[in-house]
Amino acid sequence: MSSLPSLRLKANADRRLRAGHLWVYSNEIDVAATPLHGFAAGDQAVLEAAGGKPLGIVAMSPNNLICARLLSRDVKHVLDKSLLVHRLNVCLSLRERLFDTPCYRLVYGDSDLLPGLVVDRFFDILVVQLASATMEAHKDDVLAALIQVCKPSGILFKNDSSARDAEGLERYVATAYGEVPEWVALEENGVKFEAPVIEGQKTGWFYDHRMNRARLAPYVKGKRVLDLFSYIGGWGVQAAAFGASEVFCVDASAFALDGVERNATLNGFAEKVTCVEGDVFAALRELKSAEERFDVVIADPPAFIKRKKDIKNGEAAYRRLNETAMRLLNKDGILVSASCSMHLEEDNLQNILLTSARHLDRNIQLLERGAQGPDHPVHPAINETRYIKSLTMRLLPNS
Amino acid sequence: MSSLPSLRLKANADRRLRAGHLWVYSNEIDVAATPLHGFAAGDQAVLEAAGGKPLGIVAMSPNNLICARLLSRDVKHVLDKSLLVHRLNVCLSLRERLFDTPCYRLVYGDSDLLPGLVVDRFFDILVVQLASATMEAHKDDVLAALIQVCKPSGILFKNDSSARDAEGLERYVATAYGEVPEWVALEENGVKFEAPVIEGQKTGWFYDHRMNRARLAPYVKGKRVLDLFSYIGGWGVQAAAFGASEVFCVDASAFALDGVERNATLNGFAEKVTCVEGDVFAALRELKSAEERFDVVIADPPAFIKRKKDIKNGEAAYRRLNETAMRLLNKDGILVSASCSMHLEEDNLQNILLTSARHLDRNIQLLERGAQGPDHPVHPAINETRYIKSLTMRLLPNS
Repeated sequence: MSSLPSLRLKANADRRLRAGHLWVYSNEIDVAATPLHGFAAGDQAVLEAAGGKPLGIVAMSPNNLICARLLSRDVKHVLDKSLLVHRLNVCLSLRERLFDTPCYRLVYGDSDLLPGLVVDRFFDILVVQLASATMEAHKDDVLAALIQVCKPSGILFKNDSSARDAEGLERYVATAYGEVPEWVALEENGVKFEAPVIEGQKTGWFYDHRMNRARLAPYVKGKRVLDLFSYIGGWGVQAAAFGASEVFCVDASAFALDGVERNATLNGFAEKVTCVEGDVFAALRELKSAEERFDVVIADPPAFIKRKKDIKNGEAAYRRLNETAMRLLNKDGILVSASCSMHLEEDNLQNILLTSARHLDRNIQLLERGAQGPDHPVHPAINETRYIKSLTMRLLPNS
Repeated sequence: MSSLPSLRLKANADRRLRAGHLWVYSNEIDVAATPLHGFAAGDQAVLEAAGGKPLGIVAMSPNNLICARLLSRDVKHVLDKSLLVHRLNVCLSLRERLFDTPCYRLVYGDSDLLPGLVVDRFFDILVVQLASATMEAHKDDVLAALIQVCKPSGILFKNDSSARDAEGLERYVATAYGEVPEWVALEENGVKFEAPVIEGQKTGWFYDHRMNRARLAPYVKGKRVLDLFSYIGGWGVQAAAFGASEVFCVDASAFALDGVERNATLNGFAEKVTCVEGDVFAALRELKSAEERFDVVIADPPAFIKRKKDIKNGEAAYRRLNETAMRLLNKDGILVSASCSMHLEEDNLQNILLTSARHLDRNIQLLERGAQGPDHPVHPAINETRYIKSLTMRLLPNS
């Protein structure tokens, strides 16, 4: 659309984009030709190579290190309601192919060519995160497109992420359409849940571990299970549903543990599930000194590594958590060790677990390497879109 | 067991082993103290650190670069029938937990602390590969232990792998116990198959892709599917069973395609499955020029990279195969790109697919990253035990 301003790249700065990436860094701009201060946050522009060849339409964040994100490689396709409807239909057709029940991440940002937009679907309720000035500027189009494509009964803007600060956007949580109850029903792997979409973490639920939780089934049947950092019972209640004999859920938040009880009751497993409120590391020490042992321990902590500079301390925390968890395992035990830290390489987590097992003189077998589910597609050119790891390890005596 | 001879390491050569690895390289031996020519292939020895501290029992291959493999970190546990029975029971307890049907890899070499031994189970038939002189020397113990633990009706030694040449072992295929028919029944993901255990590739069946084949289900329902390098229909017949409308299996081997027909018929899907005999690259060209298009293409070729020196040519072959496969996809198409080349890094395969997609100007989403199933556990210290990759990609128009 020729009425949009141009954003001109320096020589060769188009290479990474031509190879598939979608992000433009501020030091790649020919600021003599197209000064960044000429753009407002949320503007769109035609991205051009140094020679002037158009590369596509970008969403502008002129004050950010990542100053522009490619919305489309076709300059005819600017962000408007029509493009949003088209992209949402492409998103929906994948999710409808994948899942029988309309509970999933419907939109996953860059990977779905909708940078700055995340939408989680809970049957007829949609929880939306707008993380960029461009999406914020188009929020009426986003709403209209979602209503047209999904016909929801309620839409919540859960706009309270730290990503908004960098874009100069205020944080807010607000019902944008219809009615959104405090606890919203969902189903995952055939198990019923309710998630606190307004008060809970992120969108209220973590669909990203769906496939990894599904793989719990053969390991937990008839077994005693410990779920660390349980939140509202995504892992623990599914373990109970898959036939675990007993499940202990540990979390520091009383609110989260209320959710565990709610979800255990919802599925008729309240008597199998015990909630332990408190700091997880302290709880692990108490369980150890009480000589409690488990057949399966699930350790899915919050991100210990939020920024690159946290890697060293964060890896030490993963080591401490997982080694302590291993000490609570029975002779032939299963550890499910998960991480949502984008900066923790899967191989590093694997090495941490190997080192811990050797330290405890136990044999270790890696049985499953899980990732985020297919409703969180990875953009193969953008490492940042891949963040979930889940390693299922078998720990044996070293005899 | 003190009657065994010692194998002495050089200073610091114990570090990798203490960190978890099981292999000893010939240049790590203190050959002045314990010359390698003092051992016969198949001997056992007590491995010692430079200072004399015993590290465990090793199986000797004195003429190989990997001259010894750790059998046990406890010097009391030498390889004999009793240790084999114990280790097989540890193997069996995992597989029985994982699978309802006794069809799986029962023993996976180093990862199950049984270096040189692979056993695939097909209900009451066992197919055994002995790949080391030590296992060959103990084949009577292996047989006796397998009979005791599994009570099979037949055991086949499928000892025709190239690994035996390096150990100075002749290749042979022989029924070692009971009766073994030419085609043996198995079940995978609820689908029935028969595998040619005597005449077929490897043990006759590739259980390693079980979980990746299971994940075909949502992608193939009602779709037109192309299975390249189909062998006897592991992927293609399962695609038909999961609801594909049409499946084309391509393989250069008429014998393999007879297996596809046999297995399609066994499940009642013969009319949905078409066999195409011929070179896969030639067949792809023909399908292209006939303007055939598919919703799902599965490309699971034999290892294009057998040795490190093949990496460059091999990666070019993966590129050619996958890009040609992409050209046959419908507008919203799924490519399942698998590799069993241990030397092909998963990230490199991902980059190959990204490059091909960009070359064809298509958007690409990585939906699933599959690995070998949990009956092929990875030893976290031994990269060589991890070899299967399966990337499920969605290819979209670049609009």
